[in-house]
Amino acid sequence: MRSAKELIEAHGPVERDVYLDLENSSPVLPEVVEAMLPYFNERAFGSPTITHKLGWEAYEAVMEASQRMASYIGASSPEEINFTNSETEANNLALLGGCIANKDKGFKVVVSTAEPLSVDFPCRALLPKIGFNVIKVPVNEEGFVIQERFEEALDKGTILVSIAAVNHEIGTIQSLKELVEIVRDKAPNALFHTDASDAYGRVPFNIKELDVDLATLSSYKIQGPRGIGALYVKEGVKVERIIEGQMGTQTLWPGLENVPAMVGFQKASEIAFKNFDEDVSHMRRLRDKLIDGILSSIKDALLNGPKGDRRAPDNVNVSFLRCVGEALTMELSFKGVYVSTGSACTRRITLPSHVLMAIGRRHEEAHGSILMKISRRHTDEDISYVLKVLPEAVERLRSISPA
Amino acid sequence: MRSAKELIEAHGPVERDVYLDLENSSPVLPEVVEAMLPYFNERAFGSPTITHKLGWEAYEAVMEASQRMASYIGASSPEEINFTNSETEANNLALLGGCIANKDKGFKVVVSTAEPLSVDFPCRALLPKIGFNVIKVPVNEEGFVIQERFEEALDKGTILVSIAAVNHEIGTIQSLKELVEIVRDKAPNALFHTDASDAYGRVPFNIKELDVDLATLSSYKIQGPRGIGALYVKEGVKVERIIEGQMGTQTLWPGLENVPAMVGFQKASEIAFKNFDEDVSHMRRLRDKLIDGILSSIKDALLNGPKGDRRAPDNVNVSFLRCVGEALTMELSFKGVYVSTGSACTRRITLPSHVLMAIGRRHEEAHGSILMKISRRHTDEDISYVLKVLPEAVERLRSISPA
Repeated sequence: MRSAKELIEAHGPVERDVYLDLENSSPVLPEVVEAMLPYFNERAFGSPTITHKLGWEAYEAVMEASQRMASYIGASSPEEINFTNSETEANNLALLGGCIANKDKGFKVVVSTAEPLSVDFPCRALLPKIGFNVIKVPVNEEGFVIQERFEEALDKGTILVSIAAVNHEIGTIQSLKELVEIVRDKAPNALFHTDASDAYGRVPFNIKELDVDLATLSSYKIQGPRGIGALYVKEGVKVERIIEGQMGTQTLWPGLENVPAMVGFQKASEIAFKNFDEDVSHMRRLRDKLIDGILSSIKDALLNGPKGDRRAPDNVNVSFLRCVGEALTMELSFKGVYVSTGSACTRRITLPSHVLMAIGRRHEEAHGSILMKISRRHTDEDISYVLKVLPEAVERLRSISPA
Repeated sequence: MRSAKELIEAHGPVERDVYLDLENSSPVLPEVVEAMLPYFNERAFGSPTITHKLGWEAYEAVMEASQRMASYIGASSPEEINFTNSETEANNLALLGGCIANKDKGFKVVVSTAEPLSVDFPCRALLPKIGFNVIKVPVNEEGFVIQERFEEALDKGTILVSIAAVNHEIGTIQSLKELVEIVRDKAPNALFHTDASDAYGRVPFNIKELDVDLATLSSYKIQGPRGIGALYVKEGVKVERIIEGQMGTQTLWPGLENVPAMVGFQKASEIAFKNFDEDVSHMRRLRDKLIDGILSSIKDALLNGPKGDRRAPDNVNVSFLRCVGEALTMELSFKGVYVSTGSACTRRITLPSHVLMAIGRRHEEAHGSILMKISRRHTDEDISYVLKVLPEAVERLRSISPA
């Protein structure tokens, strides 16, 4: 096994760099970095609740970021936006803080089998330890929650439901409004939480129309900075803090506010919502060009997740039979194309992606999958280049595969 | 009450800007911002555990940051450095994760009455809820833990002790080595945690010589970026995760690693340790110039905390009788001098700083206190300017005070 350093050094010049691993990390947009820069040490670098100029400037910056973010999702008030350090913290806060605050009403939590790990792992490791039962509802072969099974799982003792708006791996756009209505009917005491990290900035959603109680938003997934995320909490909904410390402007997460990151998150959001419809059409076109190009040029390739309008505009996830996903990501890296295999979340575990298993893929199919996400800045030329190098890479790996 | 915007607009040009509120936030050093910049979108912007070039670069960056940070504190291995989102998360992780992992050994936790709020609040709000008893040991009038009372509090059922290396408000340099020895003797099952946020980069400490089990390090307190902190965990010491999600290179804190912030934290550390002794002498000289200047020019002013070598080189905390601290911070802001009153942590609560109360200050003395921290970049001219405007400000406020 070569070291990371050796692997980096082994890279030669490439015809083009196409970064498609936007599921796991992202380059921050240049305009976002530019917007953040003054906040590091020129202005507003005080703590937002300290009574001096740098503090007041910081307070104004935090208020403006909250206000804008609230407007992008259709929230009623900036106070409904609670900044955390990332979507991971926001999901943990929603699940743990939401359950603890409502434990007098019951002890049942309902999620699907295809949730992101920052929902799935707290459900496995933390909630049962503090006395909550977690019920996992299956999804169908396209990743949609099976509604009859969902209804069966709900009752008056259910205090929290968490279903992602868009699946992070296979792009399934859940029928969230219907699911919320079912919950209001069958589980009137339950809070509805949605991890909207893969919807925000790419799939239209209005938080008031959907009527969810809690929603997680991610910054890096729209090429904003890391170190910031947000949890929308509907006015009147109770959530308890899960860590404690100095309280500033954010009532649910203590500690010094990361103002430069908030400003960056706001800027990335502004960019995402500026030409929303146009950008989404562009991404959807490139997505279909990539999917169609792969399926027509590579045999024994299976698309994971739904097609068309029910799929997120940025998501491409394909399983290549007789091909190990990890080998393929490496092979493609040397050509300047950066993708991931299965879910990055599971990379330290030898098990394949739990999402792909949840939609019924066999181990071999899951292991041979690669996940690509298209941004509003990708071009036709980028996709054409991927369609040039990907079939060669699959071909080469299959030719040296023992199978 | 004027709005933040109005208050900012009311500021005219000033002779000089002197930012001394380094307790609550800090301007990031320009070299640190410069070091971070390429990591936003030029290199290493992958997730450190994904197998492609951007991921390998990120992995190398994380490993280098861990290695360097380990070397600065004298840790045996980079694996002992666990990055979190800030010192707040690190303290919560140490306390909650340390207690939960060792609950089979007992249920007693011992802290002092002068700990930072990210230690104090988890002890009040979170630990008792999950079944732990917290004993608070008093400090003397200079902020030192009273050793006899400390010894009395410890026993074999004590599983965790947390005492900050340096008090964040009054600069008391605790005799940590002695306290650790007492714990090893009286409470052999206890982990020793220290919040070293106010020592790191300013007060020499070697983690192996001290033999603590857990130590919190802060980035913004050495003018590194926000959104990052670290918990040193001695090899073999068990700590449980308190939030769950995608596991990457950091085994105690899930989620995408904030690589630019890690690089920034590393760079700020490098700067802090480069000319350590020289810088510390410089800060100490400016500190004493400021303290002596205040005490000789302003009557009814009381220094909070010890003097000389037992005080952190950056800390100046003075109570002005017949003066409201918050009014003073505002008055000084208009002159370009930025300070805080009491502990910023307590600003949303009408109570005075718990640290000042712990050392026996009366309410009025605590309310009239201001806290200033000197950095290695401050100059003699900065301090002379503060000594020019501060007496005038105190004088003016006292002249309009109803008392």
